[in-house]
Amino acid sequence: MSREIEFYFDFGSPNSYLAWTQLHGLAERCDASLRYRPISLGALFKATGNVSPMAVPIKGKYLIRDLLRCAAGLEVPLLVNPHFPLNTLPLMRMAQGIQLRQADDFLPFVTAMFTSIWVDGQNTADPEVLQPVLQQAGLDAVAIVALAQDSDIKAELKRQTDDAVARGVFGAPTFFVGEEMFWGHDRLNHVEDALRASADVQ
Amino acid sequence: MSREIEFYFDFGSPNSYLAWTQLHGLAERCDASLRYRPISLGALFKATGNVSPMAVPIKGKYLIRDLLRCAAGLEVPLLVNPHFPLNTLPLMRMAQGIQLRQADDFLPFVTAMFTSIWVDGQNTADPEVLQPVLQQAGLDAVAIVALAQDSDIKAELKRQTDDAVARGVFGAPTFFVGEEMFWGHDRLNHVEDALRASADVQ
Repeated sequence: MSREIEFYFDFGSPNSYLAWTQLHGLAERCDASLRYRPISLGALFKATGNVSPMAVPIKGKYLIRDLLRCAAGLEVPLLVNPHFPLNTLPLMRMAQGIQLRQADDFLPFVTAMFTSIWVDGQNTADPEVLQPVLQQAGLDAVAIVALAQDSDIKAELKRQTDDAVARGVFGAPTFFVGEEMFWGHDRLNHVEDALRASADVQ
Repeated sequence: MSREIEFYFDFGSPNSYLAWTQLHGLAERCDASLRYRPISLGALFKATGNVSPMAVPIKGKYLIRDLLRCAAGLEVPLLVNPHFPLNTLPLMRMAQGIQLRQADDFLPFVTAMFTSIWVDGQNTADPEVLQPVLQQAGLDAVAIVALAQDSDIKAELKRQTDDAVARGVFGAPTFFVGEEMFWGHDRLNHVEDALRASADVQ
Protein backbone atom coordinates (compact mmCIF):
# COMPACT_ATOMS: atom_id res chain seq x y z
CA MET A 1 0.00 0.00 0.00
CA SER A 2 1.47 3.32 -1.03
CA ARG A 3 1.15 6.26 1.31
CA GLU A 4 -0.52 9.39 0.08
CA ILE A 5 -1.27 12.88 1.32
CA GLU A 6 -4.35 14.47 -0.18
CA PHE A 7 -4.15 18.26 -0.24
CA TYR A 8 -7.36 20.29 -0.59
CA PHE A 9 -6.45 23.85 -1.43
CA ASP A 10 -7.49 27.16 -2.92
CA PHE A 11 -4.92 29.66 -4.22
CA GLY A 12 -6.76 32.43 -2.40
CA SER A 13 -5.96 30.92 0.99
CA PRO A 14 -2.68 32.12 2.53
CA ASN A 15 -2.77 29.11 4.84
CA SER A 16 -2.89 26.86 1.76
CA TYR A 17 0.18 28.68 0.47
CA LEU A 18 2.08 28.16 3.73
CA ALA A 19 1.17 24.47 3.73
CA TRP A 20 2.21 24.12 0.11
CA THR A 21 5.70 25.47 0.88
CA GLN A 22 6.14 22.54 3.29
CA LEU A 23 4.28 19.71 1.62
CA HIS A 24 6.74 18.49 -0.98
CA GLY A 25 9.50 18.28 1.63
CA LEU A 26 7.18 16.46 4.00
CA ALA A 27 6.08 14.00 1.33
CA GLU A 28 9.70 13.28 0.44
CA ARG A 29 10.73 12.79 4.09
CA CYS A 30 7.87 10.35 4.59
CA ASP A 31 8.21 8.61 1.23
CA ALA A 32 4.61 9.57 0.47
CA SER A 33 2.95 10.78 -2.70
CA LEU A 34 1.05 14.04 -2.83
CA ARG A 35 -2.36 14.33 -4.44
CA TYR A 36 -3.52 17.87 -5.15
CA ARG A 37 -7.26 18.38 -4.81
CA PRO A 38 -8.38 21.78 -6.11
CA ILE A 39 -11.58 23.10 -4.56
CA SER A 40 -13.50 26.35 -4.53
CA LEU A 41 -13.21 27.67 -1.00
CA GLY A 42 -16.06 30.11 -1.58
CA ALA A 43 -18.39 27.30 -2.62
CA LEU A 44 -17.17 25.20 0.31
CA PHE A 45 -17.99 27.98 2.77
CA LYS A 46 -21.43 28.37 1.24
CA ALA A 47 -22.11 24.64 1.48
CA THR A 48 -20.92 24.19 5.06
CA GLY A 49 -22.04 27.44 6.68
CA ASN A 50 -18.42 28.13 7.57
CA VAL A 51 -16.99 31.59 6.95
CA SER A 52 -13.54 32.87 6.16
CA PRO A 53 -11.53 33.26 9.37
CA MET A 54 -10.88 36.78 8.09
CA ALA A 55 -14.61 37.62 8.14
CA VAL A 56 -14.56 38.87 11.74
CA PRO A 57 -12.50 42.09 11.51
CA ILE A 58 -10.85 41.88 14.95
CA LYS A 59 -9.85 38.28 14.17
CA GLY A 60 -8.68 39.03 10.65
CA LYS A 61 -6.31 41.69 11.92
CA TYR A 62 -4.68 39.22 14.31
CA LEU A 63 -4.57 36.41 11.76
CA ILE A 64 -2.45 38.52 9.44
CA ARG A 65 0.14 39.01 12.19
CA ASP A 66 -0.05 35.30 12.91
CA LEU A 67 0.48 34.40 9.25
CA LEU A 68 3.58 36.58 9.10
CA ARG A 69 4.95 35.03 12.28
CA CYS A 70 4.30 31.53 10.93
CA ALA A 71 5.98 32.36 7.62
CA ALA A 72 8.98 33.78 9.47
CA GLY A 73 9.14 30.62 11.60
CA LEU A 74 9.09 28.47 8.46
CA GLU A 75 11.59 30.81 6.79
CA VAL A 76 9.42 31.24 3.71
CA PRO A 77 8.51 34.52 2.04
CA LEU A 78 4.95 35.78 2.51
CA LEU A 79 3.50 39.08 1.41
CA VAL A 80 -0.06 39.65 2.55
CA ASN A 81 -1.79 40.26 -0.75
CA PRO A 82 -3.15 43.82 -0.88
CA HIS A 83 -5.98 42.63 -3.15
CA PHE A 84 -7.15 39.97 -0.66
CA PRO A 85 -9.69 38.42 -0.84
CA LEU A 86 -9.20 37.49 -4.50
CA ASN A 87 -11.91 35.80 -6.53
CA THR A 88 -9.94 32.66 -7.28
CA LEU A 89 -12.80 30.58 -8.70
CA PRO A 90 -11.55 30.90 -12.32
CA LEU A 91 -8.01 30.03 -11.18
CA MET A 92 -9.24 26.93 -9.37
CA ARG A 93 -11.13 25.89 -12.51
CA MET A 94 -7.90 26.29 -14.44
CA ALA A 95 -6.09 24.15 -11.87
CA GLN A 96 -8.79 21.50 -12.21
CA GLY A 97 -8.60 21.62 -16.00
CA ILE A 98 -4.81 21.47 -16.17
CA GLN A 99 -4.74 18.54 -13.75
CA LEU A 100 -7.17 16.66 -15.98
CA ARG A 101 -5.96 17.59 -19.42
CA GLN A 102 -2.35 18.79 -19.36
CA ALA A 103 -0.91 17.22 -16.22
CA ASP A 104 2.71 18.14 -17.03
CA ASP A 105 1.80 21.81 -16.61
CA PHE A 106 0.15 21.32 -13.23
CA LEU A 107 3.05 21.91 -10.85
CA PRO A 108 4.42 24.90 -12.82
CA PHE A 109 0.91 26.40 -12.76
CA VAL A 110 0.48 25.83 -9.02
CA THR A 111 3.88 27.37 -8.34
CA ALA A 112 3.08 30.39 -10.52
CA MET A 113 -0.25 30.98 -8.78
CA PHE A 114 0.89 30.62 -5.17
CA THR A 115 4.02 32.66 -5.83
CA SER A 116 2.39 35.49 -7.73
CA ILE A 117 -0.36 35.84 -5.11
CA TRP A 118 1.47 35.24 -1.82
CA VAL A 119 5.07 36.18 -2.58
CA ASP A 120 4.70 38.90 -5.23
CA GLY A 121 1.36 40.21 -3.95
CA GLN A 122 -0.16 40.37 -7.43
CA ASN A 123 -3.84 40.51 -8.24
CA THR A 124 -3.59 37.29 -10.23
CA ALA A 125 -7.36 36.90 -10.39
CA ASP A 126 -7.34 39.81 -12.85
CA PRO A 127 -6.98 38.39 -16.40
CA GLU A 128 -4.59 41.18 -17.37
CA VAL A 129 -2.28 40.26 -14.51
CA LEU A 130 -2.73 36.54 -15.01
CA GLN A 131 -1.61 36.43 -18.61
CA PRO A 132 2.00 37.62 -18.12
CA VAL A 133 2.29 35.47 -14.98
CA LEU A 134 1.41 32.41 -17.05
CA GLN A 135 3.76 33.41 -19.84
CA GLN A 136 6.64 33.95 -17.44
CA ALA A 137 6.04 30.43 -16.12
CA GLY A 138 6.38 29.13 -19.68
CA LEU A 139 2.70 28.20 -19.88
CA ASP A 140 0.24 28.62 -22.75
CA ALA A 141 -1.89 31.45 -21.39
CA VAL A 142 -4.59 31.26 -24.05
CA ALA A 143 -5.17 27.53 -23.58
CA ILE A 144 -5.20 27.79 -19.79
CA VAL A 145 -7.56 30.74 -19.61
CA ALA A 146 -9.94 28.87 -21.92
CA LEU A 147 -10.11 25.99 -19.43
CA ALA A 148 -11.92 28.23 -16.93
CA GLN A 149 -14.78 28.58 -19.43
CA ASP A 150 -15.15 24.85 -20.10
CA SER A 151 -18.45 23.59 -18.72
CA ASP A 152 -17.11 20.07 -18.08
CA ILE A 153 -14.31 21.50 -15.98
CA LYS A 154 -16.63 23.85 -14.12
CA ALA A 155 -18.79 20.85 -13.29
CA GLU A 156 -15.77 18.79 -12.22
CA LEU A 157 -14.54 21.46 -9.79
CA LYS A 158 -18.03 21.69 -8.36
CA ARG A 159 -18.15 17.90 -8.01
CA GLN A 160 -14.74 17.86 -6.30
CA THR A 161 -15.87 20.58 -3.90
CA ASP A 162 -19.12 18.73 -3.13
CA ASP A 163 -17.11 15.55 -2.52
CA ALA A 164 -14.86 17.47 -0.14
CA VAL A 165 -17.88 18.66 1.86
CA ALA A 166 -19.18 15.09 1.98
CA ARG A 167 -15.83 14.01 3.44
CA GLY A 168 -16.02 16.66 6.17
CA VAL A 169 -13.83 19.38 4.65
CA PHE A 170 -14.84 22.87 5.84
CA GLY A 171 -11.76 24.99 5.10
CA ALA A 172 -8.37 25.06 3.42
CA PRO A 173 -5.82 23.70 3.55
CA THR A 174 -7.17 20.29 4.48
CA PHE A 175 -5.18 17.09 4.30
CA PHE A 176 -6.16 13.46 4.36
CA VAL A 177 -4.00 10.49 5.20
CA GLY A 178 -6.33 7.63 4.42
CA GLU A 179 -9.64 8.79 5.90
CA GLU A 180 -8.02 10.80 8.70
CA MET A 181 -8.52 14.53 8.17
CA PHE A 182 -6.27 17.41 9.22
CA TRP A 183 -6.95 21.12 8.84
CA GLY A 184 -4.46 23.97 8.70
CA HIS A 185 -0.81 24.44 7.84
CA ASP A 186 -0.11 24.19 11.55
CA ARG A 187 -1.22 20.56 11.65
CA LEU A 188 1.37 19.20 9.23
CA ASN A 189 3.11 17.69 12.23
CA HIS A 190 -0.02 15.57 12.74
CA VAL A 191 -0.03 14.66 9.05
CA GLU A 192 3.56 13.51 9.42
CA ASP A 193 2.70 11.51 12.54
CA ALA A 194 -0.14 9.81 10.68
CA LEU A 195 2.11 8.93 7.75
CA ARG A 196 4.75 7.46 10.04
CA ALA A 197 2.13 5.53 12.01
CA SER A 198 0.74 4.05 8.79
CA ALA A 199 4.29 3.02 7.83
CA ASP A 200 4.73 1.25 11.18
CA VAL A 201 1.53 -0.70 10.61
CA GLN A 202 2.55 -1.99 7.19
CA MET B 1 11.83 44.67 33.64
CA SER B 2 10.20 41.42 34.62
CA ARG B 3 8.73 39.26 31.90
CA GLU B 4 5.10 38.35 32.06
CA ILE B 5 2.63 36.18 30.17
CA GLU B 6 -0.97 37.35 30.34
CA PHE B 7 -3.44 34.51 29.94
CA TYR B 8 -7.03 35.29 28.95
CA PHE B 9 -9.14 32.22 29.55
CA ASP B 10 -12.58 30.76 30.16
CA PHE B 11 -13.04 27.39 31.88
CA GLY B 12 -15.55 26.40 29.19
CA SER B 13 -12.88 26.48 26.49
CA PRO B 14 -11.04 23.18 25.95
CA ASN B 15 -8.28 25.07 24.20
CA SER B 16 -7.84 27.19 27.33
CA TYR B 17 -7.51 23.97 29.29
CA LEU B 18 -4.85 22.60 26.94
CA ALA B 19 -2.92 25.87 27.15
CA TRP B 20 -3.19 25.91 30.92
CA THR B 21 -1.59 22.46 31.17
CA GLN B 22 1.49 23.91 29.46
CA LEU B 23 1.68 27.46 30.79
CA HIS B 24 3.25 27.00 34.20
CA GLY B 25 6.05 24.92 32.70
CA LEU B 26 6.56 27.48 29.96
CA ALA B 27 6.66 30.37 32.43
CA GLU B 28 9.21 28.52 34.53
CA ARG B 29 11.41 27.68 31.54
CA CYS B 30 11.38 31.32 30.47
CA ASP B 31 11.68 32.79 33.95
CA ALA B 32 8.42 34.67 33.36
CA SER B 33 5.47 35.37 35.60
CA LEU B 34 1.97 34.33 34.66
CA ARG B 35 -0.98 36.68 35.00
CA TYR B 36 -4.39 35.01 34.79
CA ARG B 37 -7.07 37.17 33.18
CA PRO B 38 -10.54 35.67 33.56
CA ILE B 39 -13.02 36.69 30.89
CA SER B 40 -16.48 35.66 29.79
CA LEU B 41 -16.03 34.03 26.41
CA GLY B 42 -19.75 34.30 25.68
CA ALA B 43 -19.68 38.07 26.26
CA LEU B 44 -16.49 38.33 24.20
CA PHE B 45 -18.12 36.55 21.25
CA LYS B 46 -21.14 38.83 21.50
CA ALA B 47 -18.95 41.95 21.57
CA THR B 48 -16.68 40.96 18.67
CA GLY B 49 -19.11 39.20 16.34
CA ASN B 50 -16.93 36.11 16.60
CA VAL B 51 -18.57 32.73 17.18
CA SER B 52 -17.45 29.56 18.87
CA PRO B 53 -15.33 27.48 16.49
CA MET B 54 -17.73 24.68 17.43
CA ALA B 55 -20.71 26.61 16.03
CA VAL B 56 -20.35 25.19 12.53
CA PRO B 57 -21.28 21.52 12.97
CA ILE B 58 -18.94 20.07 10.34
CA LYS B 59 -16.08 22.07 11.87
CA GLY B 60 -16.98 21.23 15.46
CA LYS B 61 -16.85 17.53 14.67
CA TYR B 62 -13.32 17.85 13.33
CA LEU B 63 -12.16 20.13 16.13
CA ILE B 64 -12.99 17.48 18.70
CA ARG B 65 -10.74 15.00 16.92
CA ASP B 66 -8.08 17.68 16.68
CA LEU B 67 -8.32 18.47 20.42
CA LEU B 68 -7.85 14.81 21.27
CA ARG B 69 -4.84 14.54 18.96
CA CYS B 70 -3.32 17.68 20.48
CA ALA B 71 -3.88 16.39 24.02
CA ALA B 72 -2.29 13.08 23.08
CA GLY B 73 0.67 14.94 21.57
CA LEU B 74 1.07 16.95 24.79
CA GLU B 75 0.57 13.79 26.85
CA VAL B 76 -2.16 15.38 28.95
CA PRO B 77 -5.55 13.89 29.78
CA LEU B 78 -8.57 15.34 28.00
CA LEU B 79 -12.13 14.11 28.10
CA VAL B 80 -14.46 15.97 25.79
CA ASN B 81 -17.10 17.18 28.22
CA PRO B 82 -20.46 15.56 27.41
CA HIS B 83 -22.24 18.66 28.77
CA PHE B 84 -20.37 21.01 26.40
CA PRO B 85 -21.02 23.90 25.96
CA LEU B 86 -21.26 24.74 29.66
CA ASN B 87 -22.56 28.07 30.89
CA THR B 88 -19.38 29.09 32.67
CA LEU B 89 -20.29 32.72 33.35
CA PRO B 90 -20.87 32.15 37.10
CA LEU B 91 -17.61 30.18 37.31
CA MET B 92 -15.70 33.00 35.64
CA ARG B 93 -17.24 35.47 38.09
CA MET B 94 -16.04 33.23 40.91
CA ALA B 95 -12.56 33.19 39.38
CA GLN B 96 -12.62 36.98 39.16
CA GLY B 97 -13.81 37.29 42.76
CA ILE B 98 -11.30 34.83 44.17
CA GLN B 99 -8.47 36.54 42.33
CA LEU B 100 -9.49 39.89 43.87
CA ARG B 101 -10.47 38.84 47.38
CA GLN B 102 -8.91 35.52 48.33
CA ALA B 103 -5.88 35.22 46.07
CA ASP B 104 -4.41 32.20 47.88
CA ASP B 105 -7.38 30.13 46.71
CA PHE B 106 -7.00 31.14 43.08
CA LEU B 107 -4.73 28.39 41.73
CA PRO B 108 -6.54 25.60 43.61
CA PHE B 109 -9.82 26.93 42.21
CA VAL B 110 -8.48 27.10 38.65
CA THR B 111 -7.09 23.58 38.92
CA ALA B 112 -10.39 22.26 40.30
CA MET B 113 -12.39 23.88 37.48
CA PHE B 114 -10.21 22.86 34.56
CA THR B 115 -9.78 19.35 35.91
CA SER B 116 -13.41 18.69 36.76
CA ILE B 117 -14.57 19.97 33.38
CA TRP B 118 -11.90 18.68 30.98
CA VAL B 119 -10.44 15.65 32.75
CA ASP B 120 -13.41 14.33 34.72
CA GLY B 121 -16.07 15.51 32.26
CA GLN B 122 -18.32 16.89 34.99
CA ASN B 123 -21.09 19.42 34.51
CA THR B 124 -19.36 21.81 36.89
CA ALA B 125 -21.61 24.70 35.84
CA ASP B 126 -24.40 22.93 37.76
CA PRO B 127 -24.34 24.19 41.39
CA GLU B 128 -25.02 20.69 42.70
CA VAL B 129 -21.95 19.39 40.92
CA LEU B 130 -19.86 22.43 41.74
CA GLN B 131 -20.23 22.25 45.51
CA PRO B 132 -18.54 18.86 46.08
CA VAL B 133 -15.86 19.77 43.51
CA LEU B 134 -14.99 22.85 45.57
CA GLN B 135 -15.07 20.92 48.83
CA GLN B 136 -12.78 18.23 47.46
CA ALA B 137 -10.33 20.98 46.49
CA GLY B 138 -10.37 22.17 50.09
CA LEU B 139 -12.21 25.37 49.21
CA ASP B 140 -15.04 27.15 51.02
CA ALA B 141 -17.92 26.39 48.66
CA VAL B 142 -20.41 28.74 50.29
CA ALA B 143 -18.10 31.74 50.17
CA ILE B 144 -17.06 31.05 46.59
CA VAL B 145 -20.55 30.52 45.25
CA ALA B 146 -21.59 33.80 46.87
CA LEU B 147 -18.92 35.65 44.87
CA ALA B 148 -20.80 34.94 41.64
CA GLN B 149 -23.73 36.98 42.99
CA ASP B 150 -21.64 40.00 44.00
CA SER B 151 -22.48 42.97 41.81
CA ASP B 152 -18.99 44.49 42.09
CA ILE B 153 -17.46 41.26 40.88
CA LYS B 154 -19.97 40.91 38.07
CA ALA B 155 -19.05 44.44 36.98
CA GLU B 156 -15.33 43.70 37.24
CA LEU B 157 -15.55 40.61 35.02
CA LYS B 158 -17.51 42.63 32.50
CA ARG B 159 -14.88 45.38 32.63
CA GLN B 160 -12.07 42.85 32.17
CA THR B 161 -13.88 41.34 29.19
CA ASP B 162 -14.48 44.78 27.65
CA ASP B 163 -10.80 45.62 28.16
CA ALA B 164 -9.87 42.38 26.42
CA VAL B 165 -11.98 43.30 23.41
CA ALA B 166 -10.35 46.73 23.35
CA ARG B 167 -6.94 45.02 23.23
CA GLY B 168 -7.98 42.89 20.27
CA VAL B 169 -8.92 39.64 22.04
CA PHE B 170 -11.57 37.66 20.12
CA GLY B 171 -11.25 34.14 21.54
CA ALA B 172 -9.63 32.00 24.20
CA PRO B 173 -7.00 31.23 25.12
CA THR B 174 -5.25 34.47 24.26
CA PHE B 175 -1.81 35.43 25.52
CA PHE B 176 0.04 38.70 25.63
CA VAL B 177 3.76 39.25 25.97
CA GLY B 178 3.94 43.00 26.31
CA GLU B 179 1.48 44.20 23.68
CA GLU B 180 2.09 41.28 21.34
CA MET B 181 -0.97 39.03 21.16
CA PHE B 182 -1.14 35.28 20.53
CA TRP B 183 -4.25 33.13 20.16
CA GLY B 184 -4.61 29.40 20.71
CA HIS B 185 -2.84 26.69 22.66
CA ASP B 186 -0.99 25.87 19.46
CA ARG B 187 0.79 29.23 19.50
CA LEU B 188 2.62 28.76 22.80
CA ASN B 189 5.78 28.26 20.76
CA HIS B 190 5.35 31.85 19.55
CA VAL B 191 4.74 33.01 23.12
CA GLU B 192 7.99 31.33 24.10
CA ASP B 193 9.84 32.93 21.17
CA ALA B 194 8.53 36.36 22.21
CA LEU B 195 9.64 35.84 25.82
CA ARG B 196 13.11 34.77 24.72
CA ALA B 197 13.38 37.67 22.29
CA SER B 198 12.43 40.12 25.05
CA ALA B 199 15.12 38.54 27.25
CA ASP B 200 17.71 39.06 24.51
CA VAL B 201 16.79 42.72 24.27
CA GLN B 202 17.18 43.40 27.98
